[in-house]
Amino acid sequence: MTQTTTQSLDLLTLRQAYANGSLRPSELIEELYRRIAAYPDQKIWISLLAQAEVLAQARRLETLTPREAATLPLYGVPFAVKDNFDVAGHPTTVGCPDFAYTPAVSATAVEKLAGAGALLLGKTNLDQFATGLVGIRSPYGPVANPFNPAYISGGSSSGSAVAVACGLVSFALGTDTAGSGRIPAGYTNTIGLKPTRGLISAAGVFPACRTLDCVSIFALTVGDAEAVLRVCEGVDGADAYSRARPLSSIQNAPDSFRFGLPRAEQLEFFGNDEYARLYAEGIALLEAIGGTRVEFDFAPLATVANLLYEGPWVAERYAAVKAFFDARPEAFLPVIRAILEQARAYSAADVFTAQYRLEELRGEIAPLWESIDCLALPTAGTIYTIAEVEADPLRLNSNLGRYTNFANLLDLCALALPNGFQSDGLPAGLTLLARAFGEDLLLDIGREFQQRRGLPLGATGLCKHG
Amino acid sequence: MTQTTTQSLDLLTLRQAYANGSLRPSELIEELYRRIAAYPDQKIWISLLAQAEVLAQARRLETLTPREAATLPLYGVPFAVKDNFDVAGHPTTVGCPDFAYTPAVSATAVEKLAGAGALLLGKTNLDQFATGLVGIRSPYGPVANPFNPAYISGGSSSGSAVAVACGLVSFALGTDTAGSGRIPAGYTNTIGLKPTRGLISAAGVFPACRTLDCVSIFALTVGDAEAVLRVCEGVDGADAYSRARPLSSIQNAPDSFRFGLPRAEQLEFFGNDEYARLYAEGIALLEAIGGTRVEFDFAPLATVANLLYEGPWVAERYAAVKAFFDARPEAFLPVIRAILEQARAYSAADVFTAQYRLEELRGEIAPLWESIDCLALPTAGTIYTIAEVEADPLRLNSNLGRYTNFANLLDLCALALPNGFQSDGLPAGLTLLARAFGEDLLLDIGREFQQRRGLPLGATGLCKHG
Repeated sequence: MTQTTTQSLDLLTLRQAYANGSLRPSELIEELYRRIAAYPDQKIWISLLAQAEVLAQARRLETLTPREAATLPLYGVPFAVKDNFDVAGHPTTVGCPDFAYTPAVSATAVEKLAGAGALLLGKTNLDQFATGLVGIRSPYGPVANPFNPAYISGGSSSGSAVAVACGLVSFALGTDTAGSGRIPAGYTNTIGLKPTRGLISAAGVFPACRTLDCVSIFALTVGDAEAVLRVCEGVDGADAYSRARPLSSIQNAPDSFRFGLPRAEQLEFFGNDEYARLYAEGIALLEAIGGTRVEFDFAPLATVANLLYEGPWVAERYAAVKAFFDARPEAFLPVIRAILEQARAYSAADVFTAQYRLEELRGEIAPLWESIDCLALPTAGTIYTIAEVEADPLRLNSNLGRYTNFANLLDLCALALPNGFQSDGLPAGLTLLARAFGEDLLLDIGREFQQRRGLPLGATGLCKHG
Repeated sequence: MTQTTTQSLDLLTLRQAYANGSLRPSELIEELYRRIAAYPDQKIWISLLAQAEVLAQARRLETLTPREAATLPLYGVPFAVKDNFDVAGHPTTVGCPDFAYTPAVSATAVEKLAGAGALLLGKTNLDQFATGLVGIRSPYGPVANPFNPAYISGGSSSGSAVAVACGLVSFALGTDTAGSGRIPAGYTNTIGLKPTRGLISAAGVFPACRTLDCVSIFALTVGDAEAVLRVCEGVDGADAYSRARPLSSIQNAPDSFRFGLPRAEQLEFFGNDEYARLYAEGIALLEAIGGTRVEFDFAPLATVANLLYEGPWVAERYAAVKAFFDARPEAFLPVIRAILEQARAYSAADVFTAQYRLEELRGEIAPLWESIDCLALPTAGTIYTIAEVEADPLRLNSNLGRYTNFANLLDLCALALPNGFQSDGLPAGLTLLARAFGEDLLLDIGREFQQRRGLPLGATGLCKHG
């Protein structure tokens, strides 16, 4: 395990250090730029903000009175964003340098975080056009796993997850269409919160599948993810898919909860017995903290998961880059080019037919929610080396989506939690999923789960629980 | 005005006649088959049920005790359905004889009506595949306007509206995707209730645009339309697009209500000053019954209306008949064939791009609902002769959709109300529209409006108000 810091960047630690005067934001920024420069895998970042620019912002925070500072929930908290978020005056590449443009306006979520006192350090590497779950589909190079550089970090929000795991930032924004906010969390021992579609505005975020895309949050603790969500959430006139949290959804978690898990024969770990064992441990822990397990038929969810990659939703990815792709197909990585070419072949009738099928599957699945409060699934069924994925890029990527791809099509929210380590030190994740606007329930269960699981935070080797 | 009956078939009249013993269901059925045989325009119907079959059902009702009969809200009420509804054992043509199939199971709505004691007489003519607002796109012939046979009756639910207007049935089911449940009501002096999408199950109804289709109700009075809605509504596992009415939506109408009307320069009557005058009268009446007028910008609604006919939703119509159309294009009317051929050209990316545009327009329009409770629009801007539509079939059809096409894309419910007659005796309509599940408000306003407008019922010459 790579240990890059002796001080955790979780919010509690930072707040205490700022409060007791042992740390100032500008000192932290200087320290972080040293860490970033020293960090062995520079492929985390596509672009860093100039240190002087970030330092100037940090120093501006230091001029605030304590009373003013106390109004900023993320005072001096360093963060990163995936390079599909617009940051005014800095290029957005979406992982494709020839496509890069420099926006005049930042994404709404970035603006909100800055307004809450958070300090943006840079923009992170990703699977090109956020198309992939592997973290190696980037012309900026594969983002290696911080626990073992032979392994993938997961994608598409690879750089964001690894930046958090390695203690280079306190939290990072990613996006999640098929699982890009969860898979990298599972492979980096971090928290991955994928809120309900539209809960965080996607204005200023370059779309993958615009009807499904979610802004997601990587953090070291469940509490940190929640604090970031509270700052970022809210209706935004600039995003037509933005949604208000209904008042009736704000409720405390039940003292006891029922969680769904697939029938034993439907659990697929692709031969990885360690992942199977860790999942069983996670389930036992959910029971220990008051959960009641309810087995359910995973088949319709698997069918929905397949719809996403094998159906016409991929045409949304093509629609997002149509003019550029038609003019400059060679600017895309071959694997992405092949996906977009296939997307072009779908007809309008195919879309409607698939939407009908999805609606039928939603109807089939709906009664499940009367017997459970959430699902508890492996974040991924196994983990692969970079070489393995390079040798079989589509099938292995698709394997990773087994437990993630259906979530946005079914309008679920999800929380990926660290769930222990294989004997070789590689991490595994467990993901809780609930119906739209069920974040509070997931966060309440997740907080308890993380505390009881008692794992170190990210890849820092530091532990801050209990 | 054609006068075909001396006894109105509205529910109040029928109930009284059944209650005081002056009429029995079987007597009514015999009378109605005589009326139907005598009615000059046989193009109303595509198929009638055998009189003996309907009589047998009527006689079964007569064997019930008064207490049993009282549990049937539509005891002995005769009705018709558009020939895109399945009725077990009877062919569904959807206006295309070569496409006809004979279903084993009736549409859910038909089943519910039969269970409530209503008596189905037959299946009515329509624009082929429910594609049109004119009522003349049928191989079974154009359905003439009952007030002047040179004029259209409106479509696509032409036969259903005319059957009600002429006193051949008490009510009829139609469908409404672009306006097919409202335009024919406006041209036949009947009530056209287009409920919220999904409120009445569309299971067993052949689809036009499945994401938008609504089952609609034609009736002589607002109260009758409401009574039929109460029987038909409700979630149906057989229709993935079926929706439950949220509990919070059930509310009484406000004592005073605010209704939106387009700015004067945005009102388009296509040169028909009489329709303009009647609309102004309707608006004045709404004010007289407690409504406050609020002018609004109609432009975004007009843009949404254009999306429906000029955008890729038409591909849903193609998706519904794909295999048959690809094999037998010559089985379609030329005008329908041309529309479906154009539909085939849309790509998957076109659909998503249009859905994004719609979502943006929804967002633009949403704030309007904070200043109004409903919209009050002309049902149609004018009326045309059959010859005029034959000479210019697409443009005039499109004109008719100006005030209707946006409703289902924006998830509105609507109630088309009789709104007086031109000096030549042709009727005009006024349509109220509200947000999803706002039917109760529309029905409350509509009841008062119909009573105060004091018009005869349908084309029967009979008046039953006040």
